[in-house]
Amino acid sequence: MTHKALLEQIKVKKSFLCVGLDIDKERIPEQLKSKPDAIFIFCKKIIEATAPYCVAYKPNIAFFEAYGLEGWKSLEKVMSFLNQRYPDIFTIADAKRADIGNTSMRYAKAYFEQFEFDSVTIAPYMGKDSVEPFLKYEGKHAILLALTSNKGALDFQMLHSEGKLLYEKVIEKSRKWKNADRLMYVVGATKAQALKEIRNLIPDSFLLIPGVGVQGGSLEEVAVNGLNDECGLLVNSSRGITYASNNDDFDQVAASIAKDFQKQMAFHLSKKGIV
Amino acid sequence: MTHKALLEQIKVKKSFLCVGLDIDKERIPEQLKSKPDAIFIFCKKIIEATAPYCVAYKPNIAFFEAYGLEGWKSLEKVMSFLNQRYPDIFTIADAKRADIGNTSMRYAKAYFEQFEFDSVTIAPYMGKDSVEPFLKYEGKHAILLALTSNKGALDFQMLHSEGKLLYEKVIEKSRKWKNADRLMYVVGATKAQALKEIRNLIPDSFLLIPGVGVQGGSLEEVAVNGLNDECGLLVNSSRGITYASNNDDFDQVAASIAKDFQKQMAFHLSKKGIV
Repeated sequence: MTHKALLEQIKVKKSFLCVGLDIDKERIPEQLKSKPDAIFIFCKKIIEATAPYCVAYKPNIAFFEAYGLEGWKSLEKVMSFLNQRYPDIFTIADAKRADIGNTSMRYAKAYFEQFEFDSVTIAPYMGKDSVEPFLKYEGKHAILLALTSNKGALDFQMLHSEGKLLYEKVIEKSRKWKNADRLMYVVGATKAQALKEIRNLIPDSFLLIPGVGVQGGSLEEVAVNGLNDECGLLVNSSRGITYASNNDDFDQVAASIAKDFQKQMAFHLSKKGIV
Repeated sequence: MTHKALLEQIKVKKSFLCVGLDIDKERIPEQLKSKPDAIFIFCKKIIEATAPYCVAYKPNIAFFEAYGLEGWKSLEKVMSFLNQRYPDIFTIADAKRADIGNTSMRYAKAYFEQFEFDSVTIAPYMGKDSVEPFLKYEGKHAILLALTSNKGALDFQMLHSEGKLLYEKVIEKSRKWKNADRLMYVVGATKAQALKEIRNLIPDSFLLIPGVGVQGGSLEEVAVNGLNDECGLLVNSSRGITYASNNDDFDQVAASIAKDFQKQMAFHLSKKGIV
């Protein structure tokens, strides 16, 4: 999906919400748990309920991978359902991949060709040649980890180097890589001040913001510090939406929370004159 | 597998060779290509031929992942074959995973519980809480990227910070994490001088060394700079062994190259008085 098509969706839905699919079988409501392929059924119900309010879905690959073959079968069904039923919704493989060039090429093949995701999250540690294979696909995006929402972000991402912080070096260097216009960046919602500075550094790039809700980030702060003139944000909520209820009404509760996010987002988009 | 059991194997086989399984269907010999599950058959033949000369196998997960469900089925068969037939051989999931804690926990589950690997390679960018879930398993190991063999290693790993290079900070900080004795480190064979310094920094840790052969690293240099008193090295060769011939004799040629590595390694182990 192109940058332009994503912006179009954002305007149509007045939302920049991404729903994260971190599906833990233990947390699927009882009445679904015993069904064959409970993971897929659960995802399908969450997607059908929340699709009017969000512009992106982000399956967290680890949660599928943890179930081995069964998990990969579920992911395949989720992606095939999403791509057929909601082709206008942006999809993110939250996979944090990257390796030497000929290996990254394989990961790109897995996510862009096999599962037909629009984007995949990428770890920057191995540098340029580990990321560029993900940037070769027209209409696809690599979402590079810049500053993450977890405590461990302090360990290396915040180290000072040549007058900058490591995550700033990651952003700065990556802007010069081939097809850098296909890059987006992960910036944790728990880092409001940094978000403001990152927005100055890359005014035009899309930022994927995890950490709103359960992890403690505030949507208000994210919107104020992160929105650009086109929008430029995808704010993710996972557990706060998918596990808001573990009763029969889980999908309706998920929808109502997603709708609430959407309303707040519409307010911020309108304040910026975007919708 | 414990550190001790791995050292035992190294002494028995007089080898510290790891054979990388980066299986590209296009490069499988013609007579196997058309068979159902050619990837597994190819791996099985390579393993049977090289097992006398190596102490570890390293499936490169991206190469399996690139084939979607079919690839994961092959990986499951490869691992089940390895664990049943060669329980004394160390296995490495070359996956370069890591994410926030509750997600890394899932990756650990995938590789340690579902596929029963002995170890998995890990990217350090997200810090302590992204790595520690991999260190909770007794007898299992996380192999942390320190200095990689690719050109992109220069982009961030070699940045100066607080009087050290980033990869040195990664090593230094990680030594203080919980269960740090279950950590090993990736150090590219193409970085001989750095290897020497890393060995001084962590005299007792196992180092996984990719990049010998096709990527240009020298076994001689690696042995001289990297061996410690117990051995402390796993030197990987992938394409140089698996694709040495694409005729019927591919497994015999792979065996003869592995044997050649083993002979050189026996020489270095003996020189150090280890065997």
